Amino acid sequence: MPLISVCLTPVLANLQTFADKVVVVVDILRATTSIITALEFGVKSILPVESVQQCRNFQNMGYIGAAERGGKIVEGFKLGNSPFDYLNPCYTGKKIALTTTNGTKTIYAIGQAKRIVFGAFVNLNAIINLLIDQKQDTVIICAGWEGEVNLEDTLFAGALIDHLNPSYTPEGDPAILSQKLFQQAKGNLIQFLEGSSHIRRLQNLGLQKDIDFCLSLDKYEIVPELINGEIIPLKNVC
Amino acid sequence: MPLISVCLTPVLANLQTFADKVVVVVDILRATTSIITALEFGVKSILPVESVQQCRNFQNMGYIGAAERGGKIVEGFKLGNSPFDYLNPCYTGKKIALTTTNGTKTIYAIGQAKRIVFGAFVNLNAIINLLIDQKQDTVIICAGWEGEVNLEDTLFAGALIDHLNPSYTPEGDPAILSQKLFQQAKGNLIQFLEGSSHIRRLQNLGLQKDIDFCLSLDKYEIVPELINGEIIPLKNVC
Repeated sequence: MPLISVCLTPVLANLQTFADKVVVVVDILRATTSIITALEFGVKSILPVESVQQCRNFQNMGYIGAAERGGKIVEGFKLGNSPFDYLNPCYTGKKIALTTTNGTKTIYAIGQAKRIVFGAFVNLNAIINLLIDQKQDTVIICAGWEGEVNLEDTLFAGALIDHLNPSYTPEGDPAILSQKLFQQAKGNLIQFLEGSSHIRRLQNLGLQKDIDFCLSLDKYEIVPELINGEIIPLKNVC
Repeated sequence: MPLISVCLTPVLANLQTFADKVVVVVDILRATTSIITALEFGVKSILPVESVQQCRNFQNMGYIGAAERGGKIVEGFKLGNSPFDYLNPCYTGKKIALTTTNGTKTIYAIGQAKRIVFGAFVNLNAIINLLIDQKQDTVIICAGWEGEVNLEDTLFAGALIDHLNPSYTPEGDPAILSQKLFQQAKGNLIQFLEGSSHIRRLQNLGLQKDIDFCLSLDKYEIVPELINGEIIPLKNVC
């Protein structure tokens, strides 16, 4: 039976072997939720870049730049890290260069992998179906917050593991811990996450609607995948 | 109100500020449990050293060497990392040099701190009393397993935070996550930990009695503290 493990933050990535595995990148609040939403609403591809300067350079080369730091849109950019930025057809067929505080950096911590796909609560069921179809050893890598473990990404990892039972075997304590946390939280995810540091950070920025959006389940069937450095949609994997 | 946070593994230590805080070092299976037990049974002091070679050097200088790697006593040493090694008066008044896979290395990840004390389930109540008395910002640092987050140390962190409520405020998602896990587990710690990677590792080594010992509550009232590089007992802090 394939194994599923969890890397709780990119700082712990060097303890994992990604090379021969499917990797699911998670940044619930808000990078992976926004990536899924953008592709669902017609964006052609998303180029994840590490720095704001790189994002600016790609903007000058014709990409639409999207840059977020500390929860806010970086000055000089029209787009940040909110899924609401993409809930319109303005960017249909466009290529976006994206940099965020945690999510895009996480991709660079992985290095080589068999496949790199992007998960969030909004496409949970699509990710589950993909993994059940793949039957490959899998690592879920959580973006966390500035290197630290966070609650919402850990809960998503737990949700995935819990729903994949018994098709996958959880491997290692972070996988067990995530699953147990989700089992405790699943009745009321939003209430469970009250008081989490990132929720409070976004609430202080007036972004409650983003939180509600990011914690809603199975809005979309799209699974984004990293192919040749760009994130593109794998539509209707179910 | 003082804050209490959790460093889930020494690899994440550089995300913390220890300098002006009380630090509680945790390695339930088995370093901190053994340190507490050894001091309770009369050991004078324990010198934590990083490498087996350093441990050998101190043995040659008159210390009693205790060395564990991968759950086993290192060849050439009489003592390892089992609390049962110390459940006798053989080492009363003796000085021990100790190196373990995770626990002793954790101490070196801290650097400067206001105080460094050692906690485990066997002295949980004594640690709670010390912290309630201190009312200082506190970090619990978990030894984990070879850099990875583990279940039993995280649960201890959660137990401490849960018992310190409302005298301390949990700070950051690792603190919330630990407390929630403990709240789920507290009815039956041993059953909750079934399947944890370290428990299985020790069971495979035939060390079930060590596990039962390490998960038993409030056997001792001693709180070990690191003073000038050596761990000595602070007796009867309650």
